[in-house]
Amino acid sequence: MPSDPIAEAHRLWVAHGWADAADGMAAITSLMRAQQIVLARVEAVLKPHGITFARYEVLMLLYFSRRHSLPMTFIGERLQVHPTSVTNAVDRLQAAALVRRTPHPHDRRSTIVELLPAGREVAEAATADLNDQVFGAPWIKPAEITNLIEVIAQIRRQAGDF
Amino acid sequence: MPSDPIAEAHRLWVAHGWADAADGMAAITSLMRAQQIVLARVEAVLKPHGITFARYEVLMLLYFSRRHSLPMTFIGERLQVHPTSVTNAVDRLQAAALVRRTPHPHDRRSTIVELLPAGREVAEAATADLNDQVFGAPWIKPAEITNLIEVIAQIRRQAGDF
Repeated sequence: MPSDPIAEAHRLWVAHGWADAADGMAAITSLMRAQQIVLARVEAVLKPHGITFARYEVLMLLYFSRRHSLPMTFIGERLQVHPTSVTNAVDRLQAAALVRRTPHPHDRRSTIVELLPAGREVAEAATADLNDQVFGAPWIKPAEITNLIEVIAQIRRQAGDF
Repeated sequence: MPSDPIAEAHRLWVAHGWADAADGMAAITSLMRAQQIVLARVEAVLKPHGITFARYEVLMLLYFSRRHSLPMTFIGERLQVHPTSVTNAVDRLQAAALVRRTPHPHDRRSTIVELLPAGREVAEAATADLNDQVFGAPWIKPAEITNLIEVIAQIRRQAGDF
């Protein structure tokens, strides 16, 4: 095994005459691996709470909403995930009695998702653990965390995120 | 919709008294979203070649290996993915006649994966397209690509990647 598989791939890219694309390949491969690392950490903390990161995001969106309820369509747009992913997450949250679906008062084709008291408790307990064990933990230097957010904001802006 | 959903989440984190964890939350959420953006771009380029990114990684590992063949176990370790993911990727590549499995000459419990000529052609054609349309494309400034690789290298080093 080489010391750093991505650095090794970069070296091979240059050696094969693809020097112009080597940095971009290494950056994209790094992003894929970083996501894998942080997702594993987040999922490990969420597991005892009985939820995944996808379900945690739905819970927090409801938690922060004024009436603790939101239309399904809004959840999908805001989380930038496919409608079937939202449906699946809400199905699982509803089965665990953390949220419930209610008909939209003005639009019969639409559905409202409402945070239940148990869901609110899970949202708060999971956030306390995530803040303590992952988000607030010193995994990289504070200045570099800000740096990372800013560089990725450029990728997100270019992708039309905001 | 707020202008930037992650900046909005950061603001809410601070407002709820979780300021110490707000930057870490924004950085991790940014990594998750960045991976989603770049994976979608990579998969769009690979689709006409009939492969996914997971299968592309297996092909390239074989392509770069001296004899164009590697043990299954090595592929899993090097790509840092679960053995079932490697099995699935190799199954699909074998069904497309891009690789073939052969018994390990010295270890009956192990399997060797060999790149076939058609697999080599797909690896080269897919790489040409990825280099041209994604890796070598000016998606963020060159200095920031290097910056991103270095910051993520810290996360990877801390996770024991190298």
